[in-house]
Amino acid sequence: MNKKQLVEQIFRKGSYLCVGLDTDIKKIPAHIQKLDDPIFEFNKRIIDATAEYTVAYKPNIAFYEALGARGWESLQRTLEYIPKDIFTIADAKRGDIGNTSGLYARAFFEQMNFDSVTVAPYMGDDSVKPFLDFKGKWAIILALTSNTGSNDFQVLESNGKPLYEHVLRTSMQWGTDENIMYVVGATKASMFAEIRKIVPNHFLLVPGVGAQGGDLKELSKLGLNKDCGMLVNSSRGIIYASSGEDFADVAAKEAKKLQVEMKQLLETVLG
Amino acid sequence: MNKKQLVEQIFRKGSYLCVGLDTDIKKIPAHIQKLDDPIFEFNKRIIDATAEYTVAYKPNIAFYEALGARGWESLQRTLEYIPKDIFTIADAKRGDIGNTSGLYARAFFEQMNFDSVTVAPYMGDDSVKPFLDFKGKWAIILALTSNTGSNDFQVLESNGKPLYEHVLRTSMQWGTDENIMYVVGATKASMFAEIRKIVPNHFLLVPGVGAQGGDLKELSKLGLNKDCGMLVNSSRGIIYASSGEDFADVAAKEAKKLQVEMKQLLETVLG
Repeated sequence: MNKKQLVEQIFRKGSYLCVGLDTDIKKIPAHIQKLDDPIFEFNKRIIDATAEYTVAYKPNIAFYEALGARGWESLQRTLEYIPKDIFTIADAKRGDIGNTSGLYARAFFEQMNFDSVTVAPYMGDDSVKPFLDFKGKWAIILALTSNTGSNDFQVLESNGKPLYEHVLRTSMQWGTDENIMYVVGATKASMFAEIRKIVPNHFLLVPGVGAQGGDLKELSKLGLNKDCGMLVNSSRGIIYASSGEDFADVAAKEAKKLQVEMKQLLETVLG
Repeated sequence: MNKKQLVEQIFRKGSYLCVGLDTDIKKIPAHIQKLDDPIFEFNKRIIDATAEYTVAYKPNIAFYEALGARGWESLQRTLEYIPKDIFTIADAKRGDIGNTSGLYARAFFEQMNFDSVTVAPYMGDDSVKPFLDFKGKWAIILALTSNTGSNDFQVLESNGKPLYEHVLRTSMQWGTDENIMYVVGATKASMFAEIRKIVPNHFLLVPGVGAQGGDLKELSKLGLNKDCGMLVNSSRGIIYASSGEDFADVAAKEAKKLQVEMKQLLETVLG
């Protein structure tokens, strides 16, 4: 999916919500557990319930990989089930030497047909560039993450600038705002404004609203640009909002609540 | 496998060779392609041919993931086939927020029973620590890699020290030399000696000898410690040394050549 299509979808739905399909076999309601492929069956119901409020789905690959080949099949079925006009993110945080990153890119872009993959920047340009060679596909590069460990290395200053800023400034040379997005954690509003100045046109994938805290309104004021330019993720706050038989209905309600707020923010912030 | 068992194996075999099972479906000889699970059949023959010269096998997970669920099954079969006294490395370069890294750890340590996983440090402590919670298992943290992109961020200086040195000094506090190793590229001999001073007791996984260049003798003089303390990887130089029906025999010959050299280096350097 290219940028134009993504932006069109966002304004049509009045939403920049990304639903994280962090589907943990242990948290799936009992009546779904009994089915043949519970991971897929859970995802299918979540997708049915939330698709109209959502512009992106983001399965975190760890949840599927933890189940081996079976998990991989559930992931593939999930991806095939997601409506084609919704953006898909393989939250895989991959990165390896050039030819090997190329294999990961093929795995997620060709084998699985994801629109995007999250990528770790530590190994530098040749670890990321292979993800930029696919038309209409995206690398979403980790810049500033929302976990406590982000304080270990991401904020180390070199030439007066934190590492995450070097990552932004260097990596934005490798591609364009049509094939690179950045992961920017929602827990650091003060840094959020600075980051938006460095990459005014790129989409930012913002995890950490909801279960991990973070204020949607404050972040949106700092982060929205004329194309919207943000995808705000919520995982647990939606998919595990209820653990009962009504989980899909409750997920829909939670997704709608965010979508309504986002529609309003798009109107008030962008005017 | 714990450190004592690894060291015992090394001195018994007179080898610190790691064979990289970067098994590319496109490079497998024609007569193996015809079999039911060519990736596994290729690996099986490589393992049979090289096990006596080798102390570790390191499948790079990208090669398997690129094939989807089927690749995952070939990987599992390969792992089960590796003799139990040989160290196994999932070269996966994973790293995610805490609970998600825990899932990757379970995938590779419990689902697959690998001895170790390579881990990217960008996201900091809570992305690595979940890999350290498994008895007898190891996290192998990327410090200084051998690709050209390592110049982008890994050598950026903060407080007069390059990022990879911060990674070493900070992460060595998270565990011990009994559950952490470091990836240190073989292309930077000058930095290799410095790194050995910072982590005198840790095992270093050294990619890049062979196809990527790098001088085994020079590196061994700089890197060997009383426990050996090094695993030197060769992938293409062994597994693709011949593309004909004799590939396994030629792989054995190449592995033996390195093992003989290593045995001599263990004797001369350690005295």
